[in-house]
Amino acid sequence: MTFTESLAAAWKTNDSLLCVGLDPDPAKFPAHLKDAPDAIFRFCSEIADATADLACAFKPQIAYFAARRAEDQLEALIAHIHERHPGVPVILDAKRGDIGSTAEQYAIEAFERYRADAVTVNPYMGRDSVEPWLAYKDKGVILLCRTSNPGGSDLQFQKVGAGETAIFELVARLVADDWNTTGQCALVVGATFPGEIARVREIVGEMPLLVPGIGAQGGDIEATVMAGKTAAGTGLMINSSRAILYAGKGEDYAAAARKVALETRDAINRWR
Amino acid sequence: MTFTESLAAAWKTNDSLLCVGLDPDPAKFPAHLKDAPDAIFRFCSEIADATADLACAFKPQIAYFAARRAEDQLEALIAHIHERHPGVPVILDAKRGDIGSTAEQYAIEAFERYRADAVTVNPYMGRDSVEPWLAYKDKGVILLCRTSNPGGSDLQFQKVGAGETAIFELVARLVADDWNTTGQCALVVGATFPGEIARVREIVGEMPLLVPGIGAQGGDIEATVMAGKTAAGTGLMINSSRAILYAGKGEDYAAAARKVALETRDAINRWR
Repeated sequence: MTFTESLAAAWKTNDSLLCVGLDPDPAKFPAHLKDAPDAIFRFCSEIADATADLACAFKPQIAYFAARRAEDQLEALIAHIHERHPGVPVILDAKRGDIGSTAEQYAIEAFERYRADAVTVNPYMGRDSVEPWLAYKDKGVILLCRTSNPGGSDLQFQKVGAGETAIFELVARLVADDWNTTGQCALVVGATFPGEIARVREIVGEMPLLVPGIGAQGGDIEATVMAGKTAAGTGLMINSSRAILYAGKGEDYAAAARKVALETRDAINRWR
Repeated sequence: MTFTESLAAAWKTNDSLLCVGLDPDPAKFPAHLKDAPDAIFRFCSEIADATADLACAFKPQIAYFAARRAEDQLEALIAHIHERHPGVPVILDAKRGDIGSTAEQYAIEAFERYRADAVTVNPYMGRDSVEPWLAYKDKGVILLCRTSNPGGSDLQFQKVGAGETAIFELVARLVADDWNTTGQCALVVGATFPGEIARVREIVGEMPLLVPGIGAQGGDIEATVMAGKTAAGTGLMINSSRAILYAGKGEDYAAAARKVALETRDAINRWR
């Protein structure tokens, strides 16, 4: 099954547009886990087990693993999710971007080593930097378009051409009209800018959008769903990381995470 | 010593603007190394030992290590260079770029785990995505500006504002006038576009430029140096990877690499 197909199946089976972001920060772990040698794996896999029937995707952020020499735990985590929760695809949030020969190496890292179903990619280096990812036909390639951080505007909001198209709109158009020949692409559009989610949806038709920025980053769920959903009421992977991961501070953290994930899924579904 | 200072010292001591790129591809290794468990470390460290007095910097490309679960060999390589060749700074070519909280994790990866002296960073997410890197005051932060690959033009060559400034020029200006408050920044500008190297040099004054694309990518040395050098005849880290690494195919590959590195350094120096 391709990433696009398994995402569509998860939207339906779990009745969910919620993507659970796995950004494991050991400083925030419950006390009983802090000194375990595989604390990162245990924390993330227990969160995954507690939320798998509520999510359309999991999104581990590789920086949190790499900062702590925990590549082996990331491999184990993705293998665990594939084995226990085969219906929920895994997006490796890596935001890679490099020339073709190097992008081939990064694609080996993401798709062959970690066995991710999809990856986030930076579009700044253009089409040939994206092609090595697209060579993996069953994988998803999720390009940064409009990011949820304040500095996102520095480049992405610059107007090009006759002055009516912003860079993020140009990226949406390039991906939709030119790069996405195989139907593997998706875009990252931050929840902090609902008007821009609507604009991107208008440009890209049914293409899935990964939307970070609800929860800790302050984006509004109603506005996000209304702006971004497709006619079928899907098309979105709305990511929440910290609000779910750190909902509880004690031994029952996974149950607390499940509770917030359920509330978030349902809050999203109210507007579909 | 800061990255900027140790780069300036290496320019002088080694009379060199050559950056030796370490992109280890085991398929291209000499036969006697192919089956060694630490082949990547051995190959790269022998190249480093053979070229250290000819280089102003080394630039390992992290993708080649990550694709092969060789993070430990990358750590060992950088430690080896610091110990044996303390005068030559190490640039970790990682092209990271993410929101602040994630960028902090990537900075831990590059600067605390790998102990790199500088890192390449993607500017697409704007200023706050760069700040966590700048918090390491003695490190270098090298922003992608104009990349050497064909698709580089897809976004970087788009004209903004009144239609006279390309995105890569805007990045050069943002970095020079706004982001580089601490003197830590440098820019990546590909050798395949000498006219654009000259344009960037005009915008950024004395800021160091990392120039990939000579050798395997076809950029011209004379045009690169004439366009990019500062009044002092420095300001450049001209990178060559494959042409040096794979100059020889036998047991004498390090000597063959040294020969090409020497020729390249001298070819560069002819135009300073």
